[in-house]
Amino acid sequence: MATNKELRIGLIGCGFMGRTHSNGYLRVKNFFPEQQYKPVLKAVCARTESKARAFADQWGYESIETDWKKLIARDDIDAVDICTPNDMHAEIAIAAAEAGKMVLCEKPLARTYEESLGMVNAIEKAGVKNTVWYNYRRLPAVTLAKQIIDSGKLGRIFHYRANFLQDWTINANLPQGGEGLWRMDAAVAGSGVTGDLLSHCIDTALWLNGSITTVSAMTETFVKERVHQLTGNVQPVGIDDACSFMCRFKNGSLGLFESTRYARGHKALYTFEINGENASIRWDLHDLNRLEFFDNADQSVLKGWRSIHVTDGDQPYMNRWWVPGLGIGYEHSFVHQVADFMQSLETGGSCSPTFREALETNQVCQAVLDSAAEGAWKTIH
Amino acid sequence: MATNKELRIGLIGCGFMGRTHSNGYLRVKNFFPEQQYKPVLKAVCARTESKARAFADQWGYESIETDWKKLIARDDIDAVDICTPNDMHAEIAIAAAEAGKMVLCEKPLARTYEESLGMVNAIEKAGVKNTVWYNYRRLPAVTLAKQIIDSGKLGRIFHYRANFLQDWTINANLPQGGEGLWRMDAAVAGSGVTGDLLSHCIDTALWLNGSITTVSAMTETFVKERVHQLTGNVQPVGIDDACSFMCRFKNGSLGLFESTRYARGHKALYTFEINGENASIRWDLHDLNRLEFFDNADQSVLKGWRSIHVTDGDQPYMNRWWVPGLGIGYEHSFVHQVADFMQSLETGGSCSPTFREALETNQVCQAVLDSAAEGAWKTIH
Amino acid sequence: MATNKELRIGLIGCGFMGRTHSNGYLRVKNFFPEQQYKPVLKAVCARTESKARAFADQWGYESIETDWKKLIARDDIDAVDICTPNDMHAEIAIAAAEAGKMVLCEKPLARTYEESLGMVNAIEKAGVKNTVWYNYRRLPAVTLAKQIIDSGKLGRIFHYRANFLQDWTINANLPQGGEGLWRMDAAVAGSGVTGDLLSHCIDTALWLNGSITTVSAMTETFVKERVHQLTGNVQPVGIDDACSFMCRFKNGSLGLFESTRYARGHKALYTFEINGENASIRWDLHDLNRLEFFDNADQSVLKGWRSIHVTDGDQPYMNRWWVPGLGIGYEHSFVHQVADFMQSLETGGSCSPTFREALETNQVCQAVLDSAAEGAWKTIH
Amino acid sequence: MATNKELRIGLIGCGFMGRTHSNGYLRVKNFFPEQQYKPVLKAVCARTESKARAFADQWGYESIETDWKKLIARDDIDAVDICTPNDMHAEIAIAAAEAGKMVLCEKPLARTYEESLGMVNAIEKAGVKNTVWYNYRRLPAVTLAKQIIDSGKLGRIFHYRANFLQDWTINANLPQGGEGLWRMDAAVAGSGVTGDLLSHCIDTALWLNGSITTVSAMTETFVKERVHQLTGNVQPVGIDDACSFMCRFKNGSLGLFESTRYARGHKALYTFEINGENASIRWDLHDLNRLEFFDNADQSVLKGWRSIHVTDGDQPYMNRWWVPGLGIGYEHSFVHQVADFMQSLETGGSCSPTFREALETNQVCQAVLDSAAEGAWKTIH
Repeated sequence: MATNKELRIGLIGCGFMGRTHSNGYLRVKNFFPEQQYKPVLKAVCARTESKARAFADQWGYESIETDWKKLIARDDIDAVDICTPNDMHAEIAIAAAEAGKMVLCEKPLARTYEESLGMVNAIEKAGVKNTVWYNYRRLPAVTLAKQIIDSGKLGRIFHYRANFLQDWTINANLPQGGEGLWRMDAAVAGSGVTGDLLSHCIDTALWLNGSITTVSAMTETFVKERVHQLTGNVQPVGIDDACSFMCRFKNGSLGLFESTRYARGHKALYTFEINGENASIRWDLHDLNRLEFFDNADQSVLKGWRSIHVTDGDQPYMNRWWVPGLGIGYEHSFVHQVADFMQSLETGGSCSPTFREALETNQVCQAVLDSAAEGAWKTIH
Repeated sequence: MATNKELRIGLIGCGFMGRTHSNGYLRVKNFFPEQQYKPVLKAVCARTESKARAFADQWGYESIETDWKKLIARDDIDAVDICTPNDMHAEIAIAAAEAGKMVLCEKPLARTYEESLGMVNAIEKAGVKNTVWYNYRRLPAVTLAKQIIDSGKLGRIFHYRANFLQDWTINANLPQGGEGLWRMDAAVAGSGVTGDLLSHCIDTALWLNGSITTVSAMTETFVKERVHQLTGNVQPVGIDDACSFMCRFKNGSLGLFESTRYARGHKALYTFEINGENASIRWDLHDLNRLEFFDNADQSVLKGWRSIHVTDGDQPYMNRWWVPGLGIGYEHSFVHQVADFMQSLETGGSCSPTFREALETNQVCQAVLDSAAEGAWKTIH
Repeated sequence: MATNKELRIGLIGCGFMGRTHSNGYLRVKNFFPEQQYKPVLKAVCARTESKARAFADQWGYESIETDWKKLIARDDIDAVDICTPNDMHAEIAIAAAEAGKMVLCEKPLARTYEESLGMVNAIEKAGVKNTVWYNYRRLPAVTLAKQIIDSGKLGRIFHYRANFLQDWTINANLPQGGEGLWRMDAAVAGSGVTGDLLSHCIDTALWLNGSITTVSAMTETFVKERVHQLTGNVQPVGIDDACSFMCRFKNGSLGLFESTRYARGHKALYTFEINGENASIRWDLHDLNRLEFFDNADQSVLKGWRSIHVTDGDQPYMNRWWVPGLGIGYEHSFVHQVADFMQSLETGGSCSPTFREALETNQVCQAVLDSAAEGAWKTIH
Repeated sequence: MATNKELRIGLIGCGFMGRTHSNGYLRVKNFFPEQQYKPVLKAVCARTESKARAFADQWGYESIETDWKKLIARDDIDAVDICTPNDMHAEIAIAAAEAGKMVLCEKPLARTYEESLGMVNAIEKAGVKNTVWYNYRRLPAVTLAKQIIDSGKLGRIFHYRANFLQDWTINANLPQGGEGLWRMDAAVAGSGVTGDLLSHCIDTALWLNGSITTVSAMTETFVKERVHQLTGNVQPVGIDDACSFMCRFKNGSLGLFESTRYARGHKALYTFEINGENASIRWDLHDLNRLEFFDNADQSVLKGWRSIHVTDGDQPYMNRWWVPGLGIGYEHSFVHQVADFMQSLETGGSCSPTFREALETNQVCQAVLDSAAEGAWKTIH
């Protein structure tokens, strides 16, 4: 750790997630000014030098690297932030941990449960601070949902359901793999919507509703062949375009999950709902400042779903921003995670989800994919 | 009054409102079976015999008339229901009252305040039962709004606003006047949207929020000339296509009202909202089974507008219909008004709004039209 | 068949469904006046004479029976309408068919696929007119969805999902079985939410999206024991309180269905959504006059889900009712089915779903229950 | 102007607006990296040194001032950004202009039309770049509305309506004036909701729908006396708590506007709607990423309001942010205005609204306040 309580960041990967994290590091200084630890954008790494250079210029990184191993080896880096495609997560994270660096890793941990387990073991052996970027937990409405559930207002839980619906891969002429499209290459991504989208739904579900014990899943690849950008050949598509699963939670509730990139009309419709004996909660990423809440304790003739606009100063994180009624956006979830990570350095706690906590999501994903492959229920716990 | 507690109805007018009322009379037997008084469809009157005959066949009226004076003169009619264009309301109502008949009159009472006042005087002199068909009061969600307000939950009232937005007369080729279009003929209708649509908004407002003391209004006729169906000539349009007004209520709150037939995209969007110190209420005719309610007494971080689906047995009128969650429609407001009228015969009370109560709406309408004509505030009380 | 084109109805069962059907028969005369065949409420049958008498008085049935076999034997009955609990459907339907009566049967056909198959065979052997009351098909918005799909606007279908969420049995003190609660007695109902609620979702899905080929299901009974109203004893609950299933349709699309009576805050939230290559459709029973539609052919920056208020005269069935913007309710779906049945007498066609068509829903329900019991995928076709 | 195309900013005022502007300056570098001009946070000015110091530390300003005249006199300042209470706008802006500085001024220009006119004259005489922070124009959905209107899709305009509803001053114990509450002190703010909230509505309306010619307004102060923070005395409240007005636009359309801080349940509900012959548009600040659009050219049975989620790369400003479906927030409107101001330096154009353009909003506000005071229609043009 640097003196002055700087946290010197080395970012690996300059894609979409590299941008969201960089923005998070830059803004936390303005909106969480009282924190002792301040992120410093020390270095960014990309294979292509020009790309690294442009990114560093845009975001204010002090230096660049083109070999991630060199970045990890640098003494002036306290924490490594992994924003590469999924197939590089494990190798980098393990190396970074072994080098004694803190590790902040994009989700999902890795392509398979096995690969993810290796990362967790390495991190825990090294004893370094770590977190996984399941950012949606830190949207104020989602955090408020967690607080309501923890308060016990819902009573016994009966149902949990979540969807993540997109429509961006319907066009059969969209190529697979390569620049900007590695999420469609099974070798790189590990899976399709399961690792990319359902992992978010599962992370939130485990956080809000506890462990999943058994699953039965179904997957489909609607477009069977696509041109691969790297080879130029038409190749079989290896990822799951859509995945649904039913499950049971440890607390006795039933779960139902669905994700697809073929739901025409939905861009990023992540929704979840939880039904308890005494109250229910719903949320929708397309209207992310709002939480819907039904309280059965309300007066009989006046019961109804409340549309809570989560923009008041006494609601999670919102004392940092503007005034009541003025919404924030997607990117703020990353600012909040950076802030919570910085806070964890100060308090000595952990910044959830840790690698260990995130591993359970990979475990569920693995069971889901196995169940779909075998056409049978799979037991997790 | 007939023995057997029959209420023998004579209906004058076979248009849209004739249908809604007839349906109301027919259904009340099935859904309010315990009531002592039962409507009997004794006679229907229309100028054209074939039209009266077809209507009688369709709705089960026992006989027809082509001269409303004959209908009123019949001994076997207890109550006269006036569904004619507005220009006939006064003459018929006054004659019916003088003949000792109960009178149920379509809204608005008449074309002007003066004309309406004559009707009220005649009705009160005759001492006959009467009601005016401001049907929206009896949609369950609107009645629930009244109950909430009467309970005092809102505290001091600050604001009342209402809109009634339609788009059916935008086409400049739509003719005016005559069959199906008398609402566009100022001589027949008295006014345009003010008497037709704003009168509904005003009736609800007076019921929910008390008297209006002063108004400032603005009207516009967007299409200045239209072919008149009866003359075949292009003639100036005399009605107001749109009307807005600001007002003050006796209770100190401010009002804002708007109505138009030129709001592209809205078919019959009647909405109102009332803001009180402690709570607020909103309603929308396009989603008529729902009432929105905000209660400032809710726990701070969980405050939000509640969407109350008014379909439970303990909500107004809903014990008569189906099971929770299954909505009713526009027409049910008329069934409820018939039921309440029948009940008033049994209990000896009145069925609001009476002619006297409805007169206040005409008074406000008159002040609104006068204000718009003069470009000045008008005082009512 | 009676002369005068009367259709003389004998109704068996005076519960909730007896009311909705009776209302349908009564109203069709007013709103479909041009039809040749007119329903006549000839007789109603209930085990308890006083109950049958009260129902006949309320709805205008000419006579009563307390033994359904006598009703079926009457010469003055053309059509038998079965509104009994599910365990009586088969016996009555088969006897009615054998007596040459037309049969209109409440859904689902029977408790099991086997039992339902017997009914279909009997009906087809007798060659009598028949229909099953899957009423939701005839809500205007749902019929419009069918028309859009049939027009080919959606292109290749990827996803179908439907939910039917209620919350009325959460209270563990609610007894099971007996008067008003036979839906909670497995011996009478055959199953819980699967036959009661999912059957509606499945009927609509088969109609809109074609046959289902394979299913994997999960059921749960949250409250394991309840007092039985008839015995007074605490007894095991045999029904499914909740049921979810995944499936594949013949057209290659994926399905996801869920039903429960434990979703706090939802009274009767039947929703469905279908995602096609070019367009998508959504619907929600709590806002039944509305259909949501996304058309990918809309101009790029202006694409969005359209909220279609299905109340215009050129939309299905709506030329029968009021004027644009004025909604109808749940009960109208039954009026429409009666009208379509009457029309089928005139045209010689069938009134869907026929017993044969409805059998497929029972087949899917059976596969769902079997799958849940066995924890394995089941193949239907 | 500095070499290197720096734009050296001097910010005066450290309140809520100081924060939103500072954030705008800081972020534009990351999200508009190709721009030649880059804002540099040179100095911030506040009367209290410790406050200025803390603000400078939090936002990265290089230096501080406690006397705004010194800030204006500095050679290393290119542009002065005025975030003070309204009563200081004119003096500072005029002095800054005379000193040859560019001026970016918070809205409204000043307390009165007269005062504002003086600012415009000074700015134009000095010939310096200028803009007024009517930030809502640059929310992507609002900019999209402008583009739709400019494309002519709406045809002849009939109606424009806008509301800005808040509820934060209902509590009668809230003091007036002083730190954080200058908006409630008429001497400082000039007016209440008219200058604060209606000015936003008017700015958008003038931009989207052209000039307003006549107005009739009504204002109210619900709580007549409040403790003043600075004097400690109970004093009369001079501001308007609520203001409504009707108006006519030059294009022949009718306008209706309302603003209040007494609408319980609404935090910052700025909504507008515009109805044209062929299409209509609606927007709502509480759901700021969405635009509602009704196109009468859609196929008859499929017409409906479209809910456009304005988060695609081809929609205004959204190519700068994330991926489709992921919303942005309130603060982004300021980032966009900074970016457009920087762009105007590069292109030589102006950044709307200029002082001259913003003056028209003050003119309307003045007419509104005069109309309310006099109880008469006021003519503007």
